[in-house]
Amino acid sequence: MTERFSTAIDELKAKFGKALSTNLTMRTQHAHTMSWLAPEPPDAVLMATDKQQISEAVKICNAHKMPVIAFGVGSSLEGQLNAPQGGLCIDMSQMNEVVRIDAEDLTATVQAGVTREQLNEALRHTGLFFPIDPGANASFGGMTATRASGTNAVKYGTMKDVVLSLEVVLPNGEIIKTGSRAKKSSAGYDLTRLMIGSEGTLGIITEITVKLFGQPECVSSGVCHFDDIDAACQAVMLTVQYGLPVARLELLDAVQVKACNAYSKLSLPEKPTLFVEFHGTENGVAEQAEIFQSIISEFGGVDFKYSSDEGERKKLWTARHNAYHASRALKPDYESLSTDACVPISRLAECVSQTVADIEAEGMIGPVVGHVGDGNFHVLLLLDKNNPEDITKTKGILARLAKRAIAMEGTCTGEHGVGQGKRAYMNDEHGEQAIGVMKAIKHAIDPNNIMNPDKIWY
Amino acid sequence: MTERFSTAIDELKAKFGKALSTNLTMRTQHAHTMSWLAPEPPDAVLMATDKQQISEAVKICNAHKMPVIAFGVGSSLEGQLNAPQGGLCIDMSQMNEVVRIDAEDLTATVQAGVTREQLNEALRHTGLFFPIDPGANASFGGMTATRASGTNAVKYGTMKDVVLSLEVVLPNGEIIKTGSRAKKSSAGYDLTRLMIGSEGTLGIITEITVKLFGQPECVSSGVCHFDDIDAACQAVMLTVQYGLPVARLELLDAVQVKACNAYSKLSLPEKPTLFVEFHGTENGVAEQAEIFQSIISEFGGVDFKYSSDEGERKKLWTARHNAYHASRALKPDYESLSTDACVPISRLAECVSQTVADIEAEGMIGPVVGHVGDGNFHVLLLLDKNNPEDITKTKGILARLAKRAIAMEGTCTGEHGVGQGKRAYMNDEHGEQAIGVMKAIKHAIDPNNIMNPDKIWY
Repeated sequence: MTERFSTAIDELKAKFGKALSTNLTMRTQHAHTMSWLAPEPPDAVLMATDKQQISEAVKICNAHKMPVIAFGVGSSLEGQLNAPQGGLCIDMSQMNEVVRIDAEDLTATVQAGVTREQLNEALRHTGLFFPIDPGANASFGGMTATRASGTNAVKYGTMKDVVLSLEVVLPNGEIIKTGSRAKKSSAGYDLTRLMIGSEGTLGIITEITVKLFGQPECVSSGVCHFDDIDAACQAVMLTVQYGLPVARLELLDAVQVKACNAYSKLSLPEKPTLFVEFHGTENGVAEQAEIFQSIISEFGGVDFKYSSDEGERKKLWTARHNAYHASRALKPDYESLSTDACVPISRLAECVSQTVADIEAEGMIGPVVGHVGDGNFHVLLLLDKNNPEDITKTKGILARLAKRAIAMEGTCTGEHGVGQGKRAYMNDEHGEQAIGVMKAIKHAIDPNNIMNPDKIWY
Repeated sequence: MTERFSTAIDELKAKFGKALSTNLTMRTQHAHTMSWLAPEPPDAVLMATDKQQISEAVKICNAHKMPVIAFGVGSSLEGQLNAPQGGLCIDMSQMNEVVRIDAEDLTATVQAGVTREQLNEALRHTGLFFPIDPGANASFGGMTATRASGTNAVKYGTMKDVVLSLEVVLPNGEIIKTGSRAKKSSAGYDLTRLMIGSEGTLGIITEITVKLFGQPECVSSGVCHFDDIDAACQAVMLTVQYGLPVARLELLDAVQVKACNAYSKLSLPEKPTLFVEFHGTENGVAEQAEIFQSIISEFGGVDFKYSSDEGERKKLWTARHNAYHASRALKPDYESLSTDACVPISRLAECVSQTVADIEAEGMIGPVVGHVGDGNFHVLLLLDKNNPEDITKTKGILARLAKRAIAMEGTCTGEHGVGQGKRAYMNDEHGEQAIGVMKAIKHAIDPNNIMNPDKIWY
């Protein structure tokens, strides 16, 4: 394998010494992610410690047209970290410094390897927090690159909304800043949001400046249950349309609840379930809960209990965050494949119901869970990879879900990104001409196509 | 003048007949904007009626390398609509259809010529509204192109936050859609936000799909006064840092209050003043007002009165919206020059105070007004254009304000855009290499440089 790019690797070795590894285990580890796609290891791994080093490494790679792939914690789901053409993996995990916290501006600047939990730990005594929470304890570089979101997005937005500016190493090794710490600006192209969601194809993100939010005075979480998934989705739709400022609004279908009960030692009724959370003043939260109660009642939602007790809340949301692992534990010897889609809220019930019916018709297991307040939901398909029929069925379900979401004026991915796994749907979703614009931008910024090649489109 | 591009103009005339005009009055009107920069008329004006027509016109212009400039209502402030190299102005005012309102999804799609007031009128019976409100009754195309915001941005965000997707005619005449109606997506590059704020340099925006918001159950507005502008800014800073969810938080300095009193027949004390508005439930709004009262008291804020009476509220906010005209009326025979800057909230008091001191030291009149909840403020300088000293002083104040804001980790424009007027500060704000990336993108999408040339950078 390491015959590819051997000159470049020699140069990198000479420059970076032990920080550069071509060790097989190391390379294999850096292709081992949460993706269902087969791992494709890089030729070498650089344990980066600062941006100048990354700039130098990228210059060498650019000179040799060697691919460069940044690696955070390896939690991406669509093959974003694979190296189909080989190349250099830049591991950002040692760039894990919280550079500054400007509490009075509600901003923080972190290196790309900092994880979301790490920043929140650093913020513990400030009364502030960072809300974006994908399932994994992802790195800021990774969350930015995939335009991640999570359970809080319905209130606080996604990475596109909370990032103020970035520091990026370009394919030619230049280091740019894409914005200021001002809350808004009309000064030129929005390079910040061009980089967010570009999945490492335009540069290596080294620093991220984000907005922070005040810890709400009062937080209250609750659970309620429905007879069928359509009713649960209808309740979500009305909640959103009513404009109720929920902080979290999550759906778990019956299979997912069963999985969570087993994995997280809960005893929830095994029915379609909504987890909800309210942030605000004590009165505000109570008002919201009351309105929510009356909305869900219209759709047969029952047993709505909510609590501001931190222990109970934590248990609930930890179970929600572990939904992925809980589902996998349903069939520990099976492979799992997590996908996501997002539709306008009025199409949510339809899209979820059709998807569940499709999975059932194929006789597959695929719990549904999702950030339904945003019209976003996930399916975790469990399959026996040695059974060709399972693979065919899985591919069919995936493709139909993507096309269904797109046909409903939605998107084939609300937060996981495209990577390798969803390239097939990009023309359908954007049209060839819009993809042409993306490719033109890619070529203008990365003419040698070294930055995470073979991702997002074919 | 019309000797420039005469072949292209003949082709356009042949194709569009009376919709195309080379009449001097028409051309002059389309260079007459709210900018302080000298008007530079186009060679011809096309009154566009649909996107196919725009696509055909752009193709002709591209073949002849003739500049194309889209025109909404002409309310831009930094020379965005000038035609320094001549070219075709595409007037979008007849493309003024509200294409669809999807109330159940909280979205609407409008043609580029629709104005913000027109959409809100169309929404009147839905219980929904569109919050972005620059001073003028701007068009959606214009607001999108300059990444506009206004008084509501502190709660609802700017155009970058509320636009879901765009339809754009590219420089080669292709028509693309840049997104779906899903609330979030991780499917590829964020072309939507690349177009937002690109000031017509990448394409002609023909349709805009935006988020809508529920009319708040209760709206309450208030006014309070401070002894000096620093105290007013300190109160703003604490309000933001506290996390109080104000819907609007506006500063008017003493000169601006005096101007508004005269112009809008108010009788406010002529002292630095905050206008504030709260949106929420009746209890929520009362709670917010109480907290605000206690914050401003710390900084000597007095006379805080608030009211949910619609008539009183309207009067107040109409006066605020007319601040520009009120200021101009202070010296009706003078020219006016409106500029804006935006800084991290912790630097607001400093930046405003230094700016006011600078204006006073120069002996100029320049009321300060602004969306201070976002750290964004405006100065309207009044000057005698026939007095070279006034011009020199004005240029000095402008340049120092831009550099001051940038040095404070802010931006030289929070919402007016760059146009021709702020090109000089772009390298300072972004660095040459980031500007290089913007230029590379521009060249990739518009290789003949026909889309609004000579804007944003030199």
